Amino acid sequence: MTQASDTRYMALALSLGRRGQGRTWPNPAVGCVIVSGGRIVGRGWTQQGGVPHAEPMALAQAGSAAHGADVFVTLEPCAHHGRTPPCAQALIDAGVARVVMAIPDSDPRVDGLGAQMLRDAGIVVETGLLGDQAFADHDGFLRRTVMGRPMVTLKLASSVDGRIATASGESQWITGAQSRRMVHVMRARHDAVMVGGGTARHDDPSLTVRDMGVDYQPTRVVISRRLDLPLMGTLARTAKETPLILCHGKDADKTLQRTWADLGATLLSCRASGTQLDMDDAMAQLGGHGLTRVFCEGGSALAATLIENDLVDRLITFTAGMTIGAEGLPNMGALGLAHLQEARRFTLSGTQMIGPDTVTTWVR
Amino acid sequence: MTQASDTRYMALALSLGRRGQGRTWPNPAVGCVIVSGGRIVGRGWTQQGGVPHAEPMALAQAGSAAHGADVFVTLEPCAHHGRTPPCAQALIDAGVARVVMAIPDSDPRVDGLGAQMLRDAGIVVETGLLGDQAFADHDGFLRRTVMGRPMVTLKLASSVDGRIATASGESQWITGAQSRRMVHVMRARHDAVMVGGGTARHDDPSLTVRDMGVDYQPTRVVISRRLDLPLMGTLARTAKETPLILCHGKDADKTLQRTWADLGATLLSCRASGTQLDMDDAMAQLGGHGLTRVFCEGGSALAATLIENDLVDRLITFTAGMTIGAEGLPNMGALGLAHLQEARRFTLSGTQMIGPDTVTTWVR
Repeated sequence: MTQASDTRYMALALSLGRRGQGRTWPNPAVGCVIVSGGRIVGRGWTQQGGVPHAEPMALAQAGSAAHGADVFVTLEPCAHHGRTPPCAQALIDAGVARVVMAIPDSDPRVDGLGAQMLRDAGIVVETGLLGDQAFADHDGFLRRTVMGRPMVTLKLASSVDGRIATASGESQWITGAQSRRMVHVMRARHDAVMVGGGTARHDDPSLTVRDMGVDYQPTRVVISRRLDLPLMGTLARTAKETPLILCHGKDADKTLQRTWADLGATLLSCRASGTQLDMDDAMAQLGGHGLTRVFCEGGSALAATLIENDLVDRLITFTAGMTIGAEGLPNMGALGLAHLQEARRFTLSGTQMIGPDTVTTWVR
Repeated sequence: MTQASDTRYMALALSLGRRGQGRTWPNPAVGCVIVSGGRIVGRGWTQQGGVPHAEPMALAQAGSAAHGADVFVTLEPCAHHGRTPPCAQALIDAGVARVVMAIPDSDPRVDGLGAQMLRDAGIVVETGLLGDQAFADHDGFLRRTVMGRPMVTLKLASSVDGRIATASGESQWITGAQSRRMVHVMRARHDAVMVGGGTARHDDPSLTVRDMGVDYQPTRVVISRRLDLPLMGTLARTAKETPLILCHGKDADKTLQRTWADLGATLLSCRASGTQLDMDDAMAQLGGHGLTRVFCEGGSALAATLIENDLVDRLITFTAGMTIGAEGLPNMGALGLAHLQEARRFTLSGTQMIGPDTVTTWVR
């Protein structure tokens, strides 16, 4: 039976799990708490690159105290031999009495088998505690497992009139330092940071996480059908240090493809859809590469393509108290709506002040 | 000496004063609380049309209890005979012991004279308690007194990409019912609701406060250089019931001017500035007419003109979780910025969720 203290333990497991977001792909970022006699005896979360899993880490901490203990885990323990032995077996071997999982694992190799293994061993299994939060936290992993593509967060940072730059392209700075810092936190919590070719050409971005004290970097992804990206730019220069994936059209110049591969980039050849890259295919390939959480920072053409193809799962809008006017560059390209009713709608999740700006989260 | 309880009494006086916002013009919406022996014996606020003032109302409630009492008033009591005898004299006659005012009155007919009258009569006078809040509440009155023009609140209601309608002009509904209801509350707290001629032509609005249980209506203001507004529209039909002011160019067709006057509108003939109306002149004339608080609801051309002329004192943005795309109508017209540095910036005052939307307040 679920008690108030169970909810607190699961909330702790969820917060531990979130520590791994952006660094455990292709694995889910799971959290685990082991409780014995009202005392927390083990805490674990999926480590960098997905190994070890959360449960073995928590079990190692708990040692013999795991015997007869309660285990709180944010996702169903795995039942298969992958890069690690099955976590369900490890829990059985440790002699735990009860496993509370927030949600089942939709991975076809698990999908109820983990829970079944535990039950067969006489362990009490409960499912669903803080399930909504766990679904949100594991959205990227579940989406990749079920739909074959990563979760996409689209960030828009604009003036109150929805502009991201002046007509001449000036965009530094619209939002304040606090917002830009929060963007770096968000980058760090995603597996990849993605921009369109126009942004890569115009801004010469590094797309890295800076000043956060993190010891890893999200993969960089650029969507560029023709691979017409600056060969002397920051992305080209750093492709060997920090992973860079280029999604390009099958018709992209072969010499350019070789050049970028030599520079260190990973090339994903995608189908075209009219004059643009087929974003469904590009996303499927990114999913196939293992990415579960992608953070898109524009520009307006890529933002519009993602919206048009219903690929935006979360929308995060930073707004600065500034007016730029209708000549400025819009945060969103053309969408070809015939009627307002066709407009894509998002559900408000929360809004707050951040320095001189606001930040609002909208979800699918 | 100011005590914690004094602050509470002044906060109450401020909230009483705000009851009058939108209905006391050309007078300020003042609040007054009279306290005797730790008991509130009188509460008053400026009544519809500005008469009676807050102090006589509170004194009437207090009766003989006003003798020796403390008076908390959000603005310096008047010292001159206007439509009412001076409030400073009424306080003296009632024998109050102490008057705490939030801010002095910048009206040249008062401007320290009220406080002086009270002091000369041996009453203790203190100034400045919750002065910042009082300045914000009386912004419209002070601005009209000092600068000759009303305070302007600009409302923008848009999609996350800053659009107020689709390319074909569809705009019902972008924001939700809760936001639209809040707009009606905001209308009721302003002396006038203002739109540009394009909005008047396209939307055929009534610009009235509905479903709020209010027994008065803000004045409607339309900015239209050529007076090319629909003569069979809602505004024309209702001009005799609810005040309608038309700010037009001196070159507007004389027959149209006569027709609108016959329909019941008040015509303010304004200077031109290039092909547009000179907004400084229009605002000065609205101030001359007595308006202290004007609520502008667009469209994008008028919004841009107000921003360009630095006439926006408060900016309120409603945002719906919807994307319309770059073909949609922008919430703000062209501003002619050469550099981002020239962009007008506003200070964030607050943001909150309202139903499915966000509402954010920015101030000068």
